[in-house]
Amino acid sequence: MSEAKRQAAEKAIEYVEDGMVVGVGTGSTVAYFIDALAGIKHRIAGAVSSSMQSSEQLRRHGIELLDLNAAGPLPLYVDGADECDPHKRLIKGGGAALTREKIIAGASEIFVCVIDPAKQVDVLGRFPLPLEVIPMARSLVAREIVSRTGGQPVWREGTVTDNGNWILDVHGLSIIDPMDMESTLNQIPGVVSVGLFARRPADVVIVGGAPATVL
Amino acid sequence: MSEAKRQAAEKAIEYVEDGMVVGVGTGSTVAYFIDALAGIKHRIAGAVSSSMQSSEQLRRHGIELLDLNAAGPLPLYVDGADECDPHKRLIKGGGAALTREKIIAGASEIFVCVIDPAKQVDVLGRFPLPLEVIPMARSLVAREIVSRTGGQPVWREGTVTDNGNWILDVHGLSIIDPMDMESTLNQIPGVVSVGLFARRPADVVIVGGAPATVL
Repeated sequence: MSEAKRQAAEKAIEYVEDGMVVGVGTGSTVAYFIDALAGIKHRIAGAVSSSMQSSEQLRRHGIELLDLNAAGPLPLYVDGADECDPHKRLIKGGGAALTREKIIAGASEIFVCVIDPAKQVDVLGRFPLPLEVIPMARSLVAREIVSRTGGQPVWREGTVTDNGNWILDVHGLSIIDPMDMESTLNQIPGVVSVGLFARRPADVVIVGGAPATVL
Repeated sequence: MSEAKRQAAEKAIEYVEDGMVVGVGTGSTVAYFIDALAGIKHRIAGAVSSSMQSSEQLRRHGIELLDLNAAGPLPLYVDGADECDPHKRLIKGGGAALTREKIIAGASEIFVCVIDPAKQVDVLGRFPLPLEVIPMARSLVAREIVSRTGGQPVWREGTVTDNGNWILDVHGLSIIDPMDMESTLNQIPGVVSVGLFARRPADVVIVGGAPATVL
């Protein structure tokens, strides 16, 4: 599987153009992308990172880190996913970086999602859906999830996000209408962000393989 | 005006029943409520606070502070507002405590809102609408607000919320459909919460005066 991740990540380098500020996601597939990006670092203007983890790796490679507020809209965002459906809608947040990932995806013109074949599903929800929540709202959000979706929220105990918040993973969902689910969950007080990328799906999905498949 | 605030706050004490855990908001009107609550503190089980500011005042009075996750659903929440329309929908967040206030309001059976008459409006929006945002999303959210609502977002520079986030105040809105506006703004990546209480309005509004008016 790590070979497929590397193949997808290296294919994504073709989307990087000279002088770009590149939005960079988080996770094991993105780690290969950052390594590949290091090989062309003289050609890019810098990167906006979605996590402390990716920031560290970018820094080690000598790639300049920029602040999203200063950088403005980005031409390109490259990130992985935990699940991807045929409409390029995603579940993300297994690595707890969903909020910053969603912000950068929202600020980017083209979102290239790099995955291995195991991430492809017909209907999202086999992977538990992560939500970032304000700590004091954990119980309230859990109760609301049960009553509004029928899913089973499980607190990812011990995990604190880069924003100082907590993660609930919602099990047992079959997400027939991802846009509606995303909108519904976004209304619950204390929900910082929902790990569903349906309102802003990926534009391009690259599935690792020899050769990689571009969807 | 401070006399009207005190009158509204003292009237709200009538909603406190023996043994209750009381949800407590934030602001100048609530400060009077906390003072009044101190007079009956032997009758209540404790308080859940929406801000460090209110927590300090409650502690000074020797009122026990409880964690919302441990306390579970609350019977009563008392808080002020920056604006209130005839349907008891509110704008809140002038004191930057909107997220925790919204969480406690969402977890409470009855929300009693205490205001002075100057807070009553026919249409919400004269008071700038506060949004709590993840710092790195400030520019993105500002751009989205302009394109989705036509309002003018102003960064409340120097203000950091109890959750470590920033505030944007949206000027120039006339909020004809508060429920729709709240839902729309909740979908923007990086928005932690919206200072519109339309999906969960107040249940009771007490307007200060001699005597206070209960709506």
